[in-house]
Amino acid sequence: MATLGAHKKHKVTIVGSGNWGTTMAKLVAENVTANPTLFEERVDVWVYEEEVTVPKESRHYDPGSELATKPQKLSELFNTLHENVKYLPGITLPPNVIANPDLADSCKDSTILIFVLPHQFIPRVCDQLVGKIVPYARAICCTKGVDVSEKGIRLMSEAIGMRLNIYCGALSGANIASEIAQEKYSETTVAYDPPPMDSRAPTPSGSPMSSQVDLISPSKSVPSERSARLKALPNEYPPLSHENVRKLFHRPYFHVRIVDDVAGVSLGGALKNIIALAAGFVDGLGWGDNAKAAVMRVGILEMVKFGKEFFPDSAKTSTFTEESCGVADVITSCSGGRNFRCAKMAVEKGESIFEIEQKVLNGQKLQGTSTAYEVNSFLKQQGLEAEFPLFTAVYKILEGKAEPKDIPEMIEPKV
Amino acid sequence: MATLGAHKKHKVTIVGSGNWGTTMAKLVAENVTANPTLFEERVDVWVYEEEVTVPKESRHYDPGSELATKPQKLSELFNTLHENVKYLPGITLPPNVIANPDLADSCKDSTILIFVLPHQFIPRVCDQLVGKIVPYARAICCTKGVDVSEKGIRLMSEAIGMRLNIYCGALSGANIASEIAQEKYSETTVAYDPPPMDSRAPTPSGSPMSSQVDLISPSKSVPSERSARLKALPNEYPPLSHENVRKLFHRPYFHVRIVDDVAGVSLGGALKNIIALAAGFVDGLGWGDNAKAAVMRVGILEMVKFGKEFFPDSAKTSTFTEESCGVADVITSCSGGRNFRCAKMAVEKGESIFEIEQKVLNGQKLQGTSTAYEVNSFLKQQGLEAEFPLFTAVYKILEGKAEPKDIPEMIEPKV
Repeated sequence: MATLGAHKKHKVTIVGSGNWGTTMAKLVAENVTANPTLFEERVDVWVYEEEVTVPKESRHYDPGSELATKPQKLSELFNTLHENVKYLPGITLPPNVIANPDLADSCKDSTILIFVLPHQFIPRVCDQLVGKIVPYARAICCTKGVDVSEKGIRLMSEAIGMRLNIYCGALSGANIASEIAQEKYSETTVAYDPPPMDSRAPTPSGSPMSSQVDLISPSKSVPSERSARLKALPNEYPPLSHENVRKLFHRPYFHVRIVDDVAGVSLGGALKNIIALAAGFVDGLGWGDNAKAAVMRVGILEMVKFGKEFFPDSAKTSTFTEESCGVADVITSCSGGRNFRCAKMAVEKGESIFEIEQKVLNGQKLQGTSTAYEVNSFLKQQGLEAEFPLFTAVYKILEGKAEPKDIPEMIEPKV
Repeated sequence: MATLGAHKKHKVTIVGSGNWGTTMAKLVAENVTANPTLFEERVDVWVYEEEVTVPKESRHYDPGSELATKPQKLSELFNTLHENVKYLPGITLPPNVIANPDLADSCKDSTILIFVLPHQFIPRVCDQLVGKIVPYARAICCTKGVDVSEKGIRLMSEAIGMRLNIYCGALSGANIASEIAQEKYSETTVAYDPPPMDSRAPTPSGSPMSSQVDLISPSKSVPSERSARLKALPNEYPPLSHENVRKLFHRPYFHVRIVDDVAGVSLGGALKNIIALAAGFVDGLGWGDNAKAAVMRVGILEMVKFGKEFFPDSAKTSTFTEESCGVADVITSCSGGRNFRCAKMAVEKGESIFEIEQKVLNGQKLQGTSTAYEVNSFLKQQGLEAEFPLFTAVYKILEGKAEPKDIPEMIEPKV
């Protein structure tokens, strides 16, 4: 619902145009059209420009045509064909999604920035945006995972928020992109909990705003010293309430639940990959469905414990046990995800998972193995390896210091 | 640990000798041997007597032999071959498990009765035991499910406890019997929460006991008017604490968690079958892993809500979201369980699930369909159908009043 007095609309940009980014662009574009009082019709997608030909999977493939043989700019093909022929071929995009290869231009004047970049590109892209965005913009990070090292844990949303000095929430769930792009029913979790912000921020016209339009309960996801520097959204805009944020993402085929717990949502997306490895190991032994379910359950409880231990003020049990970003994402990842499949194959073939990774993934890397190493190095540093026996078991199996058949004994509760 | 002064040991009987009952007998027999100060060595199994020949699956099958051709009593074969050739062929049982076809004799002097009977036999078998058991016996019900009708919900454990006037807990989890019989790693949940009991019960020697040996915090699973009539265990016996109950069930391949919530554990085993039908329906549509995980997650939350609504003093959220009897049993049942498979096949073949049931199950009935009808009739009576949209959707699909493709819309949260 637009608020009385609001006469501006939110401009939305998707920063990233891979498989998941393009899927997000499609559903967000559908939603801005459905909510014309809240959002600008045009949705920009920042495309890292490259030259491509139209592949067989595209709806516009014709083996004899120029499209299939002569490389052209991805962004131009995107805007002509309304299809991301390289990263989401076969899916028609709404005409209000515009590919833009100029990063700063794509984000200019946008009040909502949706980050869907591979992990490693986030710092560099954010640095390029400093000073180029409106100071009261809000971000949602859809990149899964966290940065864990011996030094500590950094959420992707924190990395984005701190570099750009804006508030950044997170979106994660049982979300295989290709299924959502095909409008198959899915759910997701959006974590959005902006703190009270400084309403004296300069408005676009230069005059300070008279009131804080989006003051809500104090956020647990932003340290207070930083939140004091965040700029409130001018009240020319509709408020970015839970209700309006939900309208940006929720579709009949993509159900959204909104929570406050940015840490929990972010951790779920990272830690589930360790659980998927464990589930693959026991499934590879032929131990059946009881064993697989047991490992998943134990893994979910280690997620809960990890959240409580390291984000005591924010991470909530229910985020892991009740939301799509927790239990449902674990289920999906342990059904047929890469980490699960490679771990299972490694046990079945009696090879190391690194050999399987090389053979099967064609140069790509498993997320689960690096997360297992990072989490272990952090837990070791904290002296807490024994408190997370499943995460530790996975690490030891990867290191060749334990075998998959040792998992039950390693995770057996000491009574 | 045996308690000072305790000089008797617990005698254990397994009431029921099907696939699951025989599996329980095996693991309990291993545990009594491992804990000789707590438990009598001999474990009786009540066998419903029948005449059988040794089938191909048995370790003792020999096509030319008399065993394979001439029917003999099941209990005699059981005790000679240390194998339940009809219901758990191929698995060697410990020699301290004794099949006993005489129900009253099998339970005589037993302080621990483990019920593993098909649902429909529980009332009749209990009635035959009235007056034949020690008054301070304790029971654990391993039969899954609850009796739901328009009149209300009756837990199996309540049915047993009330008929025999003893305390009855419950055991349920992600427990496919054949996997546990093969000692593949599994977990389970035991709900055990006996109330304060009357210590003036006559002891076997006739004198009243001087103290209540097993007074623990007041139980939420037994109404107080009934608990006042329950007889305390004489202190000649080791206490039946959580620790000692755990020793009866926990094995290196069968991990036990003990909780207080009998209602939650019992409901989990019943309601998961409705969820498995829903998961089968969406999987049959080819909707992929996101959709299946979403339906499972929504189903777990409806379990939680059902428990809170109808067992407000006992059922806990964590029983459903964190224990084997909740989330893990849902996962196992939605992986390859019967209800899941038949629902999926029904959608794929465009037939009703009742047609599939007839073709595939050889006269047996799906638990999920009857539970879905019973739960719906109860919810309708309460005027609460709309509060449980997934359970209601499954019922409507079974009735032909909705289609699997309508599930997302039917369960979409109204905001």
